[in-house]
Parts: sequence; structure tokens; C-alpha cells
Amino acid sequence: MPDQIKYLLDEDQIPLTWYNFAADLPGLAPALHPGTGRPLSPGDLTAIMPDELAKQELTTEREIEIPGPVREIYAQWRPSPLFRARRLERALDTPARIYYKYEGGSPAGSHKPNTAIAQAYYNKEAGITRLATETGAGQWGSALSLAGALFGLDVKVFMVNVSYHQKPYRRVLMETYGATCTPSPSRETRAGREILAADPECSGSLGIATSEAIEVAMDDPTTNYAGGSVLNHVLLHQSVIGQEAIAQFGMAEDWPDIVVGCAGGGSNLGGLSFPFLGEHLRDGRTTRVIGAEPAACPTMTRGRLAYDFGDTAQLTPLLKMHTLGHGFIPPSLHAGGLRYHGMAPLVSAAVEQGLIEPVAVPQTDCFAAGLRFARAEGIVPAPESTHAIQVAVAEALRCREEGVSRSILFGLSGHGHFDLSAYEAYLGGTLANDPCDEDGMTAALAALPDVVGT
Amino acid sequence: MPDQIKYLLDEDQIPLTWYNFAADLPGLAPALHPGTGRPLSPGDLTAIMPDELAKQELTTEREIEIPGPVREIYAQWRPSPLFRARRLERALDTPARIYYKYEGGSPAGSHKPNTAIAQAYYNKEAGITRLATETGAGQWGSALSLAGALFGLDVKVFMVNVSYHQKPYRRVLMETYGATCTPSPSRETRAGREILAADPECSGSLGIATSEAIEVAMDDPTTNYAGGSVLNHVLLHQSVIGQEAIAQFGMAEDWPDIVVGCAGGGSNLGGLSFPFLGEHLRDGRTTRVIGAEPAACPTMTRGRLAYDFGDTAQLTPLLKMHTLGHGFIPPSLHAGGLRYHGMAPLVSAAVEQGLIEPVAVPQTDCFAAGLRFARAEGIVPAPESTHAIQVAVAEALRCREEGVSRSILFGLSGHGHFDLSAYEAYLGGTLANDPCDEDGMTAALAALPDVVGT
Repeated sequence: MPDQIKYLLDEDQIPLTWYNFAADLPGLAPALHPGTGRPLSPGDLTAIMPDELAKQELTTEREIEIPGPVREIYAQWRPSPLFRARRLERALDTPARIYYKYEGGSPAGSHKPNTAIAQAYYNKEAGITRLATETGAGQWGSALSLAGALFGLDVKVFMVNVSYHQKPYRRVLMETYGATCTPSPSRETRAGREILAADPECSGSLGIATSEAIEVAMDDPTTNYAGGSVLNHVLLHQSVIGQEAIAQFGMAEDWPDIVVGCAGGGSNLGGLSFPFLGEHLRDGRTTRVIGAEPAACPTMTRGRLAYDFGDTAQLTPLLKMHTLGHGFIPPSLHAGGLRYHGMAPLVSAAVEQGLIEPVAVPQTDCFAAGLRFARAEGIVPAPESTHAIQVAVAEALRCREEGVSRSILFGLSGHGHFDLSAYEAYLGGTLANDPCDEDGMTAALAALPDVVGT
Repeated sequence: MPDQIKYLLDEDQIPLTWYNFAADLPGLAPALHPGTGRPLSPGDLTAIMPDELAKQELTTEREIEIPGPVREIYAQWRPSPLFRARRLERALDTPARIYYKYEGGSPAGSHKPNTAIAQAYYNKEAGITRLATETGAGQWGSALSLAGALFGLDVKVFMVNVSYHQKPYRRVLMETYGATCTPSPSRETRAGREILAADPECSGSLGIATSEAIEVAMDDPTTNYAGGSVLNHVLLHQSVIGQEAIAQFGMAEDWPDIVVGCAGGGSNLGGLSFPFLGEHLRDGRTTRVIGAEPAACPTMTRGRLAYDFGDTAQLTPLLKMHTLGHGFIPPSLHAGGLRYHGMAPLVSAAVEQGLIEPVAVPQTDCFAAGLRFARAEGIVPAPESTHAIQVAVAEALRCREEGVSRSILFGLSGHGHFDLSAYEAYLGGTLANDPCDEDGMTAALAALPDVVGT
């Protein structure tokens, strides 16, 4: 055989435990109860999630056992392959060694099922019969719908209104799995009705949809909320990505000098990079980690590190994170998964401590890199993932300029088969670099909650 | 770990050779030159394909070596996984052991790249710079576009007019890979212009698009034709599916009593089943093979076994196959990959000899089975693949009735992420069981070419 392009692990090499970055990261600020302003306890969360997930959200234990039934379902597509992008390297004429960890082989086409399966399992065990959630472009909603189908749970998805109408096929995917999908803001919740009263034409946002989903979960004891990013337990579940990648780099007898992930709420970036950063913090093994975010929603590069709400109606705990303000409504980027006003507290703290280097990239550059990647490697990447590709390609070209061979790993978080309308716009020259809404950002930042001691 | 659900082979277990069913199948009728009526020689084909593929089309050698560069690209997604459908088994409460061989993990989402990569390789080696082809729903066109991108070949796709407009995203996928996609019939070919002169609103058919692609290849010495099904060498390349499955059944310490594949032109069915049938013919190891076709395009169950053309303009050799007549235009089934008037000569001969049992299934039954599968196994199947699922589920339910545990293998030829409009129609109750066009079939059968001795 020619040079190896794929590193596969056996089914029994799916990690036995999730890795909790909170165990190794010093100085993580606690989430606060929005009423009392005091650090959250697990009991504060159990109105909307099962005990086990509430515990995982707050624990600093390093390793959490992955339940057998979760590993059994993971086994359908995990361990996911690590690819060496040899054809892309040749196309770029670079001495860099480029690798990508591909999560698009899951039945929902992205990394999101890694936590959806886990959350559905714990909720089923706790006797819950329905999960409520929000979704933007639909990656998370379809992953949770999949998980609901596999565990026999009803799933109720509030989908950002503009995406609901622009991306009907993501909605159909959720319905194919048996879920119910409602455009948000809706008349089904107080939060939705209030917003519609003020603006009957509201196009919606992830923050609004989150408020609706949490309200439904709080009102109905048989319904829980399931979050697709930002929360500590979500990033915990995604750690299988990076843990597998470390084992695969062992097979390749290599180690990444640079790890790149795209970041919306942080679950893909954290899942990929935290196990590497953990090695760094414990053993001093250095890896440069870059978080790639859209220039139109520049949470890490231009937001403020402050306590803020995760949703518009201020139902969530206060999280210390990079935020553009919970009232910020990002432009309608095609990379819908990256349109969120905040960033996971774990990622934010790592950025603050210089462990993750944030970079904001314009949308058309990302699609250019995505097209280059598709034509060399064959896989059409999700628009979210093209942000990581853009940065990885730039680093590989820098290797060429400098005549240095570095090892670059990026996360290919999903395939783009649901996102071809964005490629159509790019190929047709009509895809714009939506500017960041400066006035909206200024106003939203000015309206950050006033939290004592921050 | 709980019971195994996935059987994976290592990269070095990708078969070293393709398996040629023509070596074992007795009494295969030769293709005939349409002008002379004499059996085809390789030289008759080299106007539209490279020598090596022309040889493969006509050879009866049992094993053809797979070139290294082809295996290197195969390695990106091959060996493909064999899954044990334990969750579906539980949902059906059946004693049957259900397995599926999943080809949707390829970058184009179906089994089609198995031959697209091989054809692109041989054409590149022969100095060809462009490939022309036809596509219906777009699975084949996008697979060839992928292969063209990887080998640096231009790709020109004639896409059936009705699909071109109804399925823009498949076209965008081809363009993302750098291919050019033209609605057929077009004004770019004599065949297209003649048809448009007679019917300016013609919705197109695979037979018409094939004529256009072949005409382009015949007129330009730097352009060759690449076929996505029907032809012997295409089925040869697809034999990796069944060969891998045999090795995987060895890992599972099982053997399929029943093998089911969906059949349009026959490449998926042949690729999956021929290696099993070869074992049967050589060693007497019995497997019942079922070919599932749509009731609206019932080539094997209601067509005639006769010499016919593969295209409307009668440019192809005469192939002895089950056919509804090359003038037959099937209704606009969502399973566009199964809308073809003919069936691969190798599959047709196997049906004639009782080695393959054909079954015609109505579309809504297929989607019902596809939905059941998606909710149990997580993977949303392509509409084509649901035909195989429908038959596999029916056989599994028969096992339950009879209290017998049989081993059932079906081919999951692709995922349905591009076909959610069909699921939307099914879920909305608007998906019809298009009836077979009886008058059209009668007329097309009456117009079969008059070939001496058939």
C-alpha cells in the first residue's frame, strides 16, 4: 500500500471515560444562580436535567465513566477516523503534515451525537419522556432527534425562525427521526409570545429558541432540556474526539504542533483540543490550539469576558464567558452553528489563560478553503468546519514559506451535504462577508447583567 | 462491550482484485455491435473508453488486479462497515439476524465512487482529459465529479432535465467538485437537439442523457464516456462490496441465508451479491439473492429479456438484458437511481438462471420501511436503498411468523441526506405509488430492435 491516509482504532478503543478539562484547568469561574448570585449547586439544575448531568456540569473529577449503552451506540461510527490529508498537502505543495479528525460519519453528519446520545441515555434512565431543545441551522436538533429515536424519547425542537423556513430539509431530517419541530419565536411559550408581541416578524435567534426550550422543560416535569454546546457536560461528552485523536497520533507516530477547531458555542473546539491541553497542563507537552470563529460573530476576539446569560429571556444560570451580549443577534451566516452570542466557559477560560488562540475569519475565505479541501480530499465540509480548514490551510502555507514541516490537526466537525445552498451562493459569487453588526454589539455589551465581583 | 454491532476490516484488507462474475456465470450472451450484429470486440469500445476498461468489459478472467492508486483512494472509506442491525431486530421482534453493508460513508454518499474512482484512474492513465456521463437523481454524476476532482479530469454531466430543476443540490455538489452540469436534453448534441425539436418541453430520461454523453465522447478524442451502472466493468468494480462482506461474515462467524439489493441498472445488486453467487457456483454454498426494484419501473419482473440499446439514440452496443424498451420513460419516482429501462446483462442472466429472485415493491412501502430503519438504526437511507430494506424487513417478519432465525444481509447503498424532499412528501402523505405506465411499456416493448437469433 502507498503512504497511509487513515488511522482507525478498534471498537474496543472507544474511550472508557470522558475527559473533564475542569479537572486540569485552573481558575475556572463558577456558574452563578441568576436569582441569588451564588455559585450553582447541582440541585439548581435538576428542574431541567437529570441528576447525573447536573453533577457532570459541576464536577471537577478528571474522568467520568461512559455508560455501556452509550458506548454501544457510539460504536456505530466511533472511533471516528483520523485522516492524513496527503492529497491536500500535495495540492498546497507544503511540507506540513496535515491531519483531520472527521466527525461527519455519524448518522446525523456531525459531532453533535456524541453528547446527544449521552444526554438521551441519562434522561431515559431518569424516567424522562421528552426532551426540549433549540437549534439554529439544525445540526444539534437533528442529532438530538436521532438520539431520541434510539432511546424512545419524544423530542421537541425550537428552530430559529429564519432557518426553519430557509433550511426545510434539516427540519425534515428531525421529523424523519420522529421529532417535532417548531419555528421560534413561537406562541407556545411565554418567552415566545412576549417577543412576538414586540416584533411579530421576529426572525429568531439561538438565544430566543433556548429560552423557549428551557421554559417548556421548567413547566413540565416529564420534559427536560438538552443543550448542544456551551455547557460543561456537553464539552465533557465531546472529549471522545480529542482522546481518540491522541491515540491515533500514537499510531501515526506523530504529535500535532497545532490543533485547530471551529468554535460557535465551543463544543467541537473543546472536544478536540481539551485532551491535548490536558496533556499540556499535566505533562507540559505543548500544542498550540487555535479557535476559529466567524468574523461576523466574533465572540472570542471581540466579545467581553463577563458573566452573562445563555439565553434571551435570562432563564439560564449566569456563565462567565466571552460574550457579545445575550441580546446580540448575529447576521444570518451560512455557518449557522457558529451564530451564538457566547462561548463555553471552559473555552473562554482557556482563551483567557493563553491556552487557546482565537482567530476570526471571513466567510468567503472559509468557503474558498472548503472548496479547495473538497476537491483534494473528496469530503465536502460543513460551513462551520470550513473555518478550521481556512486556518489550517493558512498555517500549512506558512510552513511552505518558512520551509518548516509542522504537524497540523484540524477538526472536520461535519459534512456539508445539508449546506449546499451555501456552496451554491459561494460558487455563484453571491455569498457575502456579512459584516459584524457593530451597533448591535455595542448595545448588547452595554446591556450585560450587572454581576457583583466581575 | 455489549453485543457487536459493527464488523470492520483493516485498510490492508481492501480486496487486491475485483471479482468478475462473468468468469463463473455460464451462458452469458455477448454484447453485439449495433451495426454488424456481431459480438463486440474491445476495439469497438475504445472510441469512448480506454483500452483497459474495454478489456475489462469483455473479459472472462475471474480476478482483475485493483491498481494501487485506486486502492489508496478506496482507503478513505473502505473497507466499508458491515453492521448487525440489532436495534432493528429488537424493533421487529424477530429471531432473524439482520446485517447491512453500508456504502453511504463514501464522500459522495453512495456506492458509486467504487467504479468512478477506477474509471477516472484508467482514463487519466490513458491521457484522457475529460469524462462525459449522464445522471438521473445525481448519485452517479456526483461520484464521477468527485473522481474527476481527485484525478484532475474535467467532468461533463448531462442531468435528466426534471431532476436538474427538482434537485438543485445534487447539481451544486457536482459543481463543488468542479464539474459542469447540463440539463438534458440539451442543445449541445445532435441527439438532444433532435429530441427538443420534437418536444421542446421534454423532461428528459436517463436514456436520452446517455445518448448525449456518448455523442460528446465519440466526437472528441480527449473525452471519454463513463457509465455508472449496467456495464460489466462497472459491476466488476462494485465487487469490492460483496468481497468485503464475505470477509466480514467470517468475522461474525455467520453466513447470509438471504442477500437483498436494490436494483436500477444493477451495479449495487451485482456488486453485493456476485461474490456470494460466485461461491455458490464454484463451491455450492447456497445463498438466496433477491433483487428489489420499484413497481413503477419493473424491469426484471415485467420486462422482456431481449437485446436492446442502453440509450435512446441507439448509440450503445446491443445488450441482452431485461428491458422495458429503450423508449420507455419511467414515472418520476423519487428513487431516481432506479429509473432505468434496462438491467445489467450480468444481473439479467442471473435472474434468468434463477440465481437472483426479482421482486417489485411499491414506493410508499419502501419509505415506510426506510423510516422504521432510520428510527431504529439512526441512518436515514437513500430512497433507492429503502427498496432493499423493505424486502429485508418483510423477510425478517416472515422469520418471526415461522419462528426461524435466518441471516439476512442487505445493501445500504447510500444515505438519504440529499433526498429529504422525498421523506417530506412521505411524511406529509403526498408521496404516491406512481403506477407503471402500461401503455408506454407496451409501446416501448413493441419497438425493441429486431436482432437476429434472439
